[in-house]
Amino acid sequence: MGIVLKPAPLTAAAFAPFGDVIETAAARELRDINYGYTQRFHDLARLDLAAAGGVPLVSIFRSTPLARPVRVKVMERHPLSSQAFFPLDARPYLVVVADRGEFNVAHLRAFVAAPRQGVNYHAGVWHHFSLALDAPSDFLVIDRGGSEKNCDEVFLDGENITIDY
Amino acid sequence: MGIVLKPAPLTAAAFAPFGDVIETAAARELRDINYGYTQRFHDLARLDLAAAGGVPLVSIFRSTPLARPVRVKVMERHPLSSQAFFPLDARPYLVVVADRGEFNVAHLRAFVAAPRQGVNYHAGVWHHFSLALDAPSDFLVIDRGGSEKNCDEVFLDGENITIDY
Repeated sequence: MGIVLKPAPLTAAAFAPFGDVIETAAARELRDINYGYTQRFHDLARLDLAAAGGVPLVSIFRSTPLARPVRVKVMERHPLSSQAFFPLDARPYLVVVADRGEFNVAHLRAFVAAPRQGVNYHAGVWHHFSLALDAPSDFLVIDRGGSEKNCDEVFLDGENITIDY
Repeated sequence: MGIVLKPAPLTAAAFAPFGDVIETAAARELRDINYGYTQRFHDLARLDLAAAGGVPLVSIFRSTPLARPVRVKVMERHPLSSQAFFPLDARPYLVVVADRGEFNVAHLRAFVAAPRQGVNYHAGVWHHFSLALDAPSDFLVIDRGGSEKNCDEVFLDGENITIDY
Protein backbone atom coordinates (compact mmCIF):
# COMPACT_ATOMS: atom_id res chain seq x y z
CA MET A 1 0.00 0.00 0.00
CA GLY A 2 1.10 3.56 0.48
CA ILE A 3 0.37 6.93 -0.99
CA VAL A 4 0.70 7.74 -4.67
CA LEU A 5 0.89 11.41 -5.56
CA LYS A 6 -0.25 12.30 -9.06
CA PRO A 7 1.31 15.65 -9.94
CA ALA A 8 -0.87 18.40 -11.34
CA PRO A 9 0.37 21.12 -13.71
CA LEU A 10 1.76 24.01 -11.71
CA THR A 11 -0.45 27.10 -11.81
CA ALA A 12 -0.36 30.24 -9.72
CA ALA A 13 -3.91 29.61 -8.53
CA ALA A 14 -3.34 26.00 -7.45
CA PHE A 15 -0.04 26.90 -5.78
CA ALA A 16 -1.32 30.00 -3.95
CA PRO A 17 -1.73 28.27 -0.56
CA PHE A 18 1.96 27.34 -0.65
CA GLY A 19 3.68 30.26 -2.32
CA ASP A 20 4.22 32.04 -5.61
CA VAL A 21 4.78 30.79 -9.13
CA ILE A 22 7.51 32.96 -10.64
CA GLU A 23 6.57 33.38 -14.29
CA THR A 24 5.76 36.18 -16.68
CA ALA A 25 2.18 34.97 -17.01
CA ALA A 26 1.62 35.56 -13.29
CA ALA A 27 2.79 39.19 -13.31
CA ARG A 28 0.34 41.60 -11.80
CA GLU A 29 2.31 44.53 -13.19
CA LEU A 30 4.17 44.94 -16.47
CA ARG A 31 6.34 48.02 -17.00
CA ASP A 32 7.93 49.22 -20.21
CA ILE A 33 11.35 50.57 -19.34
CA ASN A 34 14.69 51.34 -20.97
CA TYR A 35 13.21 53.33 -23.85
CA GLY A 36 11.10 50.43 -25.02
CA TYR A 37 13.87 47.84 -25.02
CA THR A 38 12.83 46.11 -21.78
CA GLN A 39 9.60 44.77 -20.38
CA ARG A 40 9.71 44.45 -16.61
CA PHE A 41 7.43 41.72 -15.21
CA HIS A 42 7.51 43.33 -11.81
CA ASP A 43 7.71 41.81 -8.33
CA LEU A 44 6.82 38.18 -9.00
CA ALA A 45 7.20 36.69 -5.52
CA ARG A 46 6.62 37.66 -1.92
CA LEU A 47 10.18 37.44 -0.67
CA ASP A 48 10.22 37.20 3.10
CA LEU A 49 13.85 37.14 4.16
CA ALA A 50 14.38 39.78 6.84
CA ALA A 51 13.05 38.11 10.02
CA ALA A 52 15.48 37.95 12.92
CA GLY A 53 18.14 39.93 11.12
CA GLY A 54 18.07 37.79 7.98
CA VAL A 55 19.58 38.95 4.71
CA PRO A 56 18.77 37.91 1.12
CA LEU A 57 21.18 35.49 -0.52
CA VAL A 58 21.47 34.36 -4.11
CA SER A 59 22.96 30.91 -4.71
CA ILE A 60 22.90 28.20 -7.36
CA PHE A 61 21.64 24.74 -6.42
CA ARG A 62 22.72 21.80 -8.58
CA SER A 63 20.13 19.07 -8.16
CA THR A 64 20.67 15.39 -8.97
CA PRO A 65 17.50 13.53 -9.97
CA LEU A 66 16.21 10.83 -7.66
CA ALA A 67 15.67 7.37 -9.11
CA ARG A 68 12.15 6.78 -10.39
CA PRO A 69 9.62 6.15 -9.15
CA VAL A 70 10.46 9.15 -6.96
CA ARG A 71 9.90 8.35 -3.27
CA VAL A 72 9.12 11.11 -0.79
CA LYS A 73 11.24 10.29 2.26
CA VAL A 74 11.74 13.69 3.84
CA MET A 75 10.04 17.07 3.82
CA GLU A 76 11.41 20.35 5.14
CA ARG A 77 10.25 23.82 6.08
CA HIS A 78 11.90 27.15 6.84
CA PRO A 79 9.96 28.78 9.66
CA LEU A 80 11.67 32.16 9.30
CA SER A 81 11.71 32.75 5.60
CA SER A 82 10.62 32.16 2.05
CA GLN A 83 12.79 30.24 -0.42
CA ALA A 84 12.62 30.83 -4.18
CA PHE A 85 13.87 28.53 -6.97
CA PHE A 86 14.12 29.32 -10.66
CA PRO A 87 15.19 26.55 -13.09
CA LEU A 88 18.13 27.30 -15.36
CA ASP A 89 18.14 24.19 -17.55
CA ALA A 90 14.92 24.33 -19.56
CA ARG A 91 13.64 21.08 -18.10
CA PRO A 92 10.45 20.41 -16.12
CA TYR A 93 10.82 19.46 -12.46
CA LEU A 94 8.63 18.23 -9.63
CA VAL A 95 7.37 20.26 -6.69
CA VAL A 96 5.99 18.58 -3.56
CA VAL A 97 4.44 20.63 -0.77
CA ALA A 98 2.20 20.34 2.26
CA ASP A 99 0.28 22.88 4.27
CA ARG A 100 1.84 24.92 7.05
CA GLY A 101 1.40 23.80 10.62
CA GLU A 102 1.77 20.27 11.92
CA PHE A 103 2.86 18.02 9.08
CA ASN A 104 0.14 15.77 7.72
CA VAL A 105 0.75 13.28 4.91
CA ALA A 106 -2.85 13.73 3.82
CA HIS A 107 -1.94 17.32 2.90
CA LEU A 108 0.81 16.40 0.44
CA ARG A 109 0.42 17.88 -3.04
CA ALA A 110 2.61 17.36 -6.09
CA PHE A 111 3.02 19.59 -9.14
CA VAL A 112 4.96 19.48 -12.39
CA ALA A 113 6.66 22.81 -13.06
CA ALA A 114 7.31 23.85 -16.63
CA PRO A 115 10.84 24.85 -17.63
CA ARG A 116 10.11 28.58 -17.33
CA GLN A 117 8.31 28.45 -13.99
CA GLY A 118 10.00 29.18 -10.69
CA VAL A 119 8.49 28.67 -7.27
CA ASN A 120 8.74 30.68 -4.06
CA TYR A 121 7.81 28.66 -0.98
CA HIS A 122 6.36 30.87 1.70
CA ALA A 123 7.71 30.71 5.24
CA GLY A 124 6.64 27.58 7.08
CA VAL A 125 5.35 25.71 4.04
CA TRP A 126 6.51 22.08 3.97
CA HIS A 127 8.32 21.23 0.75
CA HIS A 128 10.57 18.62 -0.74
CA PHE A 129 14.04 19.65 -1.85
CA SER A 130 14.50 20.36 -5.57
CA LEU A 131 13.35 17.42 -7.66
CA ALA A 132 15.14 17.65 -10.97
CA LEU A 133 14.12 15.17 -13.64
CA ASP A 134 16.17 13.34 -16.26
CA ALA A 135 19.51 15.08 -15.67
CA PRO A 136 21.35 17.15 -13.07
CA SER A 137 19.79 20.60 -13.17
CA ASP A 138 20.67 24.00 -11.80
CA PHE A 139 18.35 26.40 -10.02
CA LEU A 140 18.93 30.00 -9.06
CA VAL A 141 17.87 30.24 -5.41
CA ILE A 142 16.92 33.31 -3.38
CA ASP A 143 16.79 32.55 0.31
CA ARG A 144 17.79 33.85 3.71
CA GLY A 145 21.17 34.15 5.35
CA GLY A 146 21.34 34.22 9.12
CA SER A 147 22.68 32.23 12.03
CA GLU A 148 19.37 31.11 13.51
CA LYS A 149 18.13 27.57 12.96
CA ASN A 150 15.74 27.83 10.06
CA CYS A 151 15.11 24.30 8.82
CA ASP A 152 12.80 21.65 10.26
CA GLU A 153 12.57 18.21 8.70
CA VAL A 154 10.05 15.41 8.94
CA PHE A 155 11.12 11.90 7.93
CA LEU A 156 8.73 9.67 6.05
CA ASP A 157 10.80 6.51 5.59
CA GLY A 158 8.07 4.52 7.29
CA GLU A 159 5.50 5.62 4.75
CA ASN A 160 5.55 4.46 1.17
CA ILE A 161 4.95 7.68 -0.72
CA THR A 162 5.68 7.73 -4.43
CA ILE A 163 5.12 10.20 -7.21
CA ASP A 164 3.38 8.85 -10.28
CA TYR A 165 5.21 10.75 -13.00
CA MET B 1 35.54 59.40 -34.76
CA GLY B 2 34.19 58.19 -31.48
CA ILE B 3 34.83 55.43 -29.01
CA VAL B 4 34.84 51.76 -29.91
CA LEU B 5 34.48 49.34 -27.01
CA LYS B 6 35.94 45.90 -27.59
CA PRO B 7 34.24 43.55 -25.12
CA ALA B 8 36.37 41.22 -23.02
CA PRO B 9 35.21 37.84 -21.73
CA LEU B 10 33.44 38.29 -18.42
CA THR B 11 35.44 37.00 -15.46
CA ALA B 12 34.94 37.50 -11.74
CA ALA B 13 38.38 39.07 -11.45
CA ALA B 14 37.93 41.57 -14.27
CA PHE B 15 34.43 42.48 -13.10
CA ALA B 16 35.31 42.85 -9.41
CA PRO B 17 35.48 46.67 -9.48
CA PHE B 18 31.89 46.76 -10.72
CA GLY B 19 30.16 43.87 -9.00
CA ASP B 20 29.84 40.12 -8.84
CA VAL B 21 29.74 37.47 -11.54
CA ILE B 22 27.04 35.00 -10.52
CA GLU B 23 28.33 31.61 -11.61
CA THR B 24 29.19 28.29 -10.02
CA ALA B 25 32.86 28.75 -10.88
CA ALA B 26 33.01 31.87 -8.70
CA ALA B 27 31.59 30.20 -5.57
CA ARG B 28 33.71 30.68 -2.50
CA GLU B 29 31.72 28.02 -0.67
CA LEU B 30 30.18 24.77 -1.91
CA ARG B 31 27.87 22.82 0.41
CA ASP B 32 26.57 19.31 -0.04
CA ILE B 33 22.97 19.28 1.19
CA ASN B 34 19.77 17.26 0.84
CA TYR B 35 21.43 13.91 1.53
CA GLY B 36 23.83 14.26 -1.35
CA TYR B 37 21.24 15.22 -3.94
CA THR B 38 22.05 18.93 -4.02
CA GLN B 39 25.20 20.98 -4.29
CA ARG B 40 24.72 24.50 -2.99
CA PHE B 41 27.02 27.09 -4.58
CA HIS B 42 26.49 29.43 -1.70
CA ASP B 43 26.03 33.20 -1.62
CA LEU B 44 27.23 34.25 -5.05
CA ALA B 45 26.58 37.98 -4.94
CA ARG B 46 26.72 40.83 -2.48
CA LEU B 47 23.08 41.83 -2.51
CA ASP B 48 22.66 45.33 -1.12
CA LEU B 49 18.96 46.07 -1.09
CA ALA B 50 17.99 47.28 2.37
CA ALA B 51 19.09 50.94 2.36
CA ALA B 52 16.39 53.47 3.22
CA GLY B 53 13.80 50.81 3.95
CA GLY B 54 14.34 48.93 0.69
CA VAL B 55 13.10 45.39 0.17
CA PRO B 56 14.33 42.68 -2.20
CA LEU B 57 12.27 42.11 -5.33
CA VAL B 58 12.42 39.36 -7.91
CA SER B 59 11.24 40.21 -11.41
CA ILE B 60 11.74 39.02 -14.98
CA PHE B 61 13.12 41.45 -17.56
CA ARG B 62 12.46 40.72 -21.23
CA SER B 63 15.15 42.45 -23.23
CA THR B 64 14.94 43.28 -26.94
CA PRO B 65 18.30 43.39 -28.72
CA LEU B 66 19.54 46.74 -30.02
CA ALA B 67 20.45 46.96 -33.68
CA ARG B 68 24.10 46.30 -34.42
CA PRO B 69 26.52 47.86 -34.19
CA VAL B 70 25.28 48.47 -30.64
CA ARG B 71 25.51 52.15 -29.72
CA VAL B 72 25.84 53.23 -26.10
CA LYS B 73 23.49 56.17 -25.76
CA VAL B 74 22.60 56.09 -22.08
CA MET B 75 24.07 54.71 -18.87
CA GLU B 76 22.36 54.38 -15.50
CA ARG B 77 23.20 53.80 -11.86
CA HIS B 78 21.26 52.93 -8.72
CA PRO B 79 22.79 54.89 -5.86
CA LEU B 80 20.93 53.00 -3.14
CA SER B 81 21.22 49.39 -4.20
CA SER B 82 22.71 46.52 -6.13
CA GLN B 83 20.93 45.01 -9.13
CA ALA B 84 21.43 41.38 -10.20
CA PHE B 85 20.64 39.81 -13.58
CA PHE B 86 20.72 36.13 -14.47
CA PRO B 87 20.08 35.09 -18.11
CA LEU B 88 17.34 32.54 -18.71
CA ASP B 89 17.76 31.93 -22.44
CA ALA B 90 21.14 30.27 -22.85
CA ARG B 91 22.48 33.08 -25.00
CA PRO B 92 25.48 35.34 -24.45
CA TYR B 93 24.82 39.02 -23.78
CA LEU B 94 26.77 42.23 -23.44
CA VAL B 95 27.59 44.06 -20.23
CA VAL B 96 28.75 47.69 -20.24
CA VAL B 97 29.87 49.41 -17.05
CA ALA B 98 31.81 52.38 -15.78
CA ASP B 99 33.34 53.23 -12.44
CA ARG B 100 31.36 54.73 -9.59
CA GLY B 101 31.50 58.45 -9.03
CA GLU B 102 31.23 61.12 -11.68
CA PHE B 103 30.58 59.48 -15.04
CA ASN B 104 33.56 59.42 -17.34
CA VAL B 105 33.43 57.96 -20.86
CA ALA B 106 37.08 57.02 -20.54
CA HIS B 107 36.04 54.57 -17.80
CA LEU B 108 33.63 52.57 -19.95
CA ARG B 109 34.29 48.82 -20.08
CA ALA B 110 32.46 46.17 -22.07
CA PHE B 111 32.21 42.44 -21.42
CA VAL B 112 30.63 39.45 -23.10
CA ALA B 113 28.78 37.29 -20.59
CA ALA B 114 28.45 33.58 -21.24
CA PRO B 115 24.96 32.04 -21.14
CA ARG B 116 25.42 30.74 -17.58
CA GLN B 117 26.88 33.89 -16.09
CA GLY B 118 24.82 36.42 -14.19
CA VAL B 119 25.99 39.83 -13.03
CA ASN B 120 25.29 41.81 -9.88
CA TYR B 121 26.04 45.52 -10.29
CA HIS B 122 27.06 47.05 -7.01
CA ALA B 123 25.36 50.21 -5.77
CA GLY B 124 26.42 53.30 -7.69
CA VAL B 125 28.14 51.45 -10.54
CA TRP B 126 27.24 52.90 -13.94
CA HIS B 127 25.83 50.26 -16.26
CA HIS B 128 23.92 49.92 -19.49
CA PHE B 129 20.52 48.26 -19.40
CA SER B 130 20.41 44.57 -20.39
CA LEU B 131 21.94 44.04 -23.81
CA ALA B 132 20.49 40.85 -25.20
CA LEU B 133 21.94 39.60 -28.46
CA ASP B 134 20.29 37.92 -31.44
CA ALA B 135 16.80 37.48 -29.97
CA PRO B 136 14.57 38.80 -27.19
CA SER B 137 15.91 37.31 -23.96
CA ASP B 138 14.68 37.00 -20.42
CA PHE B 139 16.64 37.70 -17.26
CA LEU B 140 15.74 36.96 -13.66
CA VAL B 141 16.40 40.20 -11.78
CA ILE B 142 16.94 40.76 -8.07
CA ASP B 143 16.74 44.41 -7.16
CA ARG B 144 15.30 46.83 -4.65
CA GLY B 145 11.77 47.95 -4.03
CA GLY B 146 11.18 51.28 -2.37
CA SER B 147 9.68 54.67 -3.05
CA GLU B 148 12.90 56.72 -3.08
CA LYS B 149 14.42 57.85 -6.36
CA ASN B 150 17.07 55.28 -7.14
CA CYS B 151 18.05 55.74 -10.77
CA ASP B 152 20.38 58.32 -12.29
CA GLU B 153 20.99 58.43 -16.02
CA VAL B 154 23.64 60.02 -18.18
CA PHE B 155 22.91 60.58 -21.87
CA LEU B 156 25.62 60.03 -24.44
CA ASP B 157 23.84 60.85 -27.67
CA GLY B 158 26.49 63.42 -28.46
CA GLU B 159 29.25 60.84 -28.29
CA ASN B 160 29.63 58.12 -30.86
CA ILE B 161 30.22 55.05 -28.72
CA THR B 162 29.86 51.66 -30.34
CA ILE B 163 30.53 48.11 -29.25
CA ASP B 164 32.67 46.06 -31.59
CA TYR B 165 31.00 42.65 -31.27
